[in-house]
Amino acid sequence: MNFQLTIVKVGGQVIEEPDSLKTFLTDFSKIAGYKMLIHGGGRTATELAKKLGVESKMINGRRITDEETLKIVTMVYAGLVNKQIVAQLQSLSVDAVGLTGADMNLILSRKRPVTDVDYGFAGDVKEVNARTLSDLFNQGYTPVLAPLTHDGEGNLLNTNADTIAAETAKALTYDFNVRLIYCFEKKGVLLDENDENSVIPVLDRELYQQYKEEGIIKDGMIPKLDNAFRALASGVQEIIITSATEMKTGKGTYIQ
Amino acid sequence: MNFQLTIVKVGGQVIEEPDSLKTFLTDFSKIAGYKMLIHGGGRTATELAKKLGVESKMINGRRITDEETLKIVTMVYAGLVNKQIVAQLQSLSVDAVGLTGADMNLILSRKRPVTDVDYGFAGDVKEVNARTLSDLFNQGYTPVLAPLTHDGEGNLLNTNADTIAAETAKALTYDFNVRLIYCFEKKGVLLDENDENSVIPVLDRELYQQYKEEGIIKDGMIPKLDNAFRALASGVQEIIITSATEMKTGKGTYIQ
Repeated sequence: MNFQLTIVKVGGQVIEEPDSLKTFLTDFSKIAGYKMLIHGGGRTATELAKKLGVESKMINGRRITDEETLKIVTMVYAGLVNKQIVAQLQSLSVDAVGLTGADMNLILSRKRPVTDVDYGFAGDVKEVNARTLSDLFNQGYTPVLAPLTHDGEGNLLNTNADTIAAETAKALTYDFNVRLIYCFEKKGVLLDENDENSVIPVLDRELYQQYKEEGIIKDGMIPKLDNAFRALASGVQEIIITSATEMKTGKGTYIQ
Repeated sequence: MNFQLTIVKVGGQVIEEPDSLKTFLTDFSKIAGYKMLIHGGGRTATELAKKLGVESKMINGRRITDEETLKIVTMVYAGLVNKQIVAQLQSLSVDAVGLTGADMNLILSRKRPVTDVDYGFAGDVKEVNARTLSDLFNQGYTPVLAPLTHDGEGNLLNTNADTIAAETAKALTYDFNVRLIYCFEKKGVLLDENDENSVIPVLDRELYQQYKEEGIIKDGMIPKLDNAFRALASGVQEIIITSATEMKTGKGTYIQ
């Protein structure tokens, strides 16, 4: 039997306020078995960009990463957010190691081709080095991944954290029983966006299709769920969409 | 016989200009045997602080690290500078991994006690986790260390890069033949600060004492050389003070 591996993706406000981050990391530290954290940091990046007079441009919820913006997200994601999380996890007896996709050549990506939109230094994942991640788990480390990858030619590329979570989960299914938890602002996928308690407990592909057609599931949830269903199809055992505060209860939307 | 390990510390302008950084990293990539890089990034940090309206305060060449400054150095050292170096080394076929002292609990430090000066979030090295660094070398990785450590209680601490170089070198002498190379702006320790070619080829403790008394060696060179002589006394086999551009020639000041 394979070992259990829990991959948690967390983003949004929860990681950008000291108190909520601390609570979340305490919950994360209690997850049994091997674990890995993938984080965002977009709000802090947007705030820093504003202070530096760099305009933050978003299209379909994705950041346009020009040269200055790449520097900003590298500072915020790989520096500030990543290392604060690592230092706090260490104090919670979790032997964390903060990495980008460039470190140990963990995630190779290609610069997104320019079509009608030029996303700039944005990377689409090409290959996850599952062997190296497995070695880290087996040696007792908890990787903390910042959403940056590299192209193998010396360039860092800004890469969507949800995608990194799904792609690493998929690559690790050969070695582990993988559970993938997406934490975001809501308690799960909602039936009614104005009712926090209308969490859909189980979502399968058919129901997802139906809710999309009915307009119940829309906007930013669609790429998130597309990622989740792709991960499911690739052998990820369990996928849960929940909030950072609900994670410890095991509640949320289960993707099946 | 122990394996050869070369530890290079680089700081100053060379790493903050793309062209000179590239040349330096190409030279670094050609070093045979195990290797590790420790970098600074002070100029970029000072520049970012200025843009953000945060005053950079230095005493005896050391930065006073208040809360805002800690955020800035974490962004610049652990984020921007570290990850740009890692991505470039990867493109030069060096399997680099960028780390702070918090990652893998590599370097534990204590917050510097407040005396007549309050250095703020500045750390003095308490313990280097040599075992973990050795494992990284043996697995084929080249660690790239940013000058930040942690206190084990969740806090990052700004730590002098020269000190990290000396302390890691000392801790690794049990497992390796350690060569420690300090790269800075000059070609070595100069007999006459106005003559770039007056490099002192060999400096022993006696000569160092004499040059200090004569005022030939002064200011910022003193803590650097004190670090170097302490490392020598702890069993580091070879210590060279040189410039980033001269490193490949093997020239510079040899500390004996």
